[in-house]
Amino acid sequence: MTEEMSARPAARRGPYAKSARRRAEIVSSATSVFAARGYRGGSLREIAKQIDLSLTSVVHHFPTKSALLVAVLERADAASIESFESDTRTKGVASAVLRYVRRNLERPEMLRLLALMAAESSAPDHPAHEWFRDRYERVIAAIAIAVRRDQDEGRISNSRAPRNIAESLVALWDGLQLQWLIDPRRDLVAGVTAALEDLLGIQDALDT
Amino acid sequence: MTEEMSARPAARRGPYAKSARRRAEIVSSATSVFAARGYRGGSLREIAKQIDLSLTSVVHHFPTKSALLVAVLERADAASIESFESDTRTKGVASAVLRYVRRNLERPEMLRLLALMAAESSAPDHPAHEWFRDRYERVIAAIAIAVRRDQDEGRISNSRAPRNIAESLVALWDGLQLQWLIDPRRDLVAGVTAALEDLLGIQDALDT
Repeated sequence: MTEEMSARPAARRGPYAKSARRRAEIVSSATSVFAARGYRGGSLREIAKQIDLSLTSVVHHFPTKSALLVAVLERADAASIESFESDTRTKGVASAVLRYVRRNLERPEMLRLLALMAAESSAPDHPAHEWFRDRYERVIAAIAIAVRRDQDEGRISNSRAPRNIAESLVALWDGLQLQWLIDPRRDLVAGVTAALEDLLGIQDALDT
Repeated sequence: MTEEMSARPAARRGPYAKSARRRAEIVSSATSVFAARGYRGGSLREIAKQIDLSLTSVVHHFPTKSALLVAVLERADAASIESFESDTRTKGVASAVLRYVRRNLERPEMLRLLALMAAESSAPDHPAHEWFRDRYERVIAAIAIAVRRDQDEGRISNSRAPRNIAESLVALWDGLQLQWLIDPRRDLVAGVTAALEDLLGIQDALDT
């Protein structure tokens, strides 16, 4: 523990900190189990076993498997969304996407999990169905706002409805990421750059 | 059985026909089980139970779960690929894609399975890993040829390398299909039409 960390308020230590740490361990274990077996194939028992916990202890923190799934998904997303939105304001949507894509190169397992869960959860009875529907809605709406701003500021030349462009952009992004997960020899950043240039009507997305 | 069908050679009846029918039933059952639980979550036992067969009988036709998965995937793809390739020659790539997308509207469960398996199989140790890598490679190569033809014939104005355009096109297609699976209220055909127009540099893709 660093100087800085130990200087934090006392509430971060003791039982609360221990419980938070335990929850984080469980979420990590669930992330790898769901990534390997899917949500439906993964079991709380295996998630517990992987970190030498009892099933009872896991259930104490996450009463249901779906509560645990939502925690996994929230963690996967939370990290970078804020900086993405701020990037779209200062640098435009193409630059913001490319920066996010570059960061994601370091976490293929998390991307695999998100791709797997998005596909699995498209079945209406899946516990993460609404979470993903809302997530796509939210991301597309946020990108549409950024696209309109770019259009107004003359950063991009495609004049189609921002909402349409945003849907295409998210699709390209998901699809190219999937191709890269399937065959990591592909150059994901170059692929996204070319696709953004064509879709948005810009030149040299990489340099912006 | 129609007149025409019963006029087929005798080899189509008897034990061979029965075995082919049985295999087809098993593949159908496996398709729905894998679509619901993923490959790793689905079991041969459940696949057998769903059609009132013994496990032994399933294993007689498909000795391993991965052999069965390959049969499921081959069936999912086989139906439309030939007519797609012929459409690209006569009508250009945009029209061919739109026709394929329209046909796919009738089989969301199959699309869900393909999306789920593509994500799951991106893990290098998955039994369908190579099948998907090869499939993407094949589809992208075929579309690149069609894109070059469209460029030569002046059907599309995007002059980027056909291979790049093909990768973007497949990504858009996968991504928009996923958005539609997650939220079927979206208009998939309109979304793909707009995306194709922007990506390829054409007008009125729907009318070609």
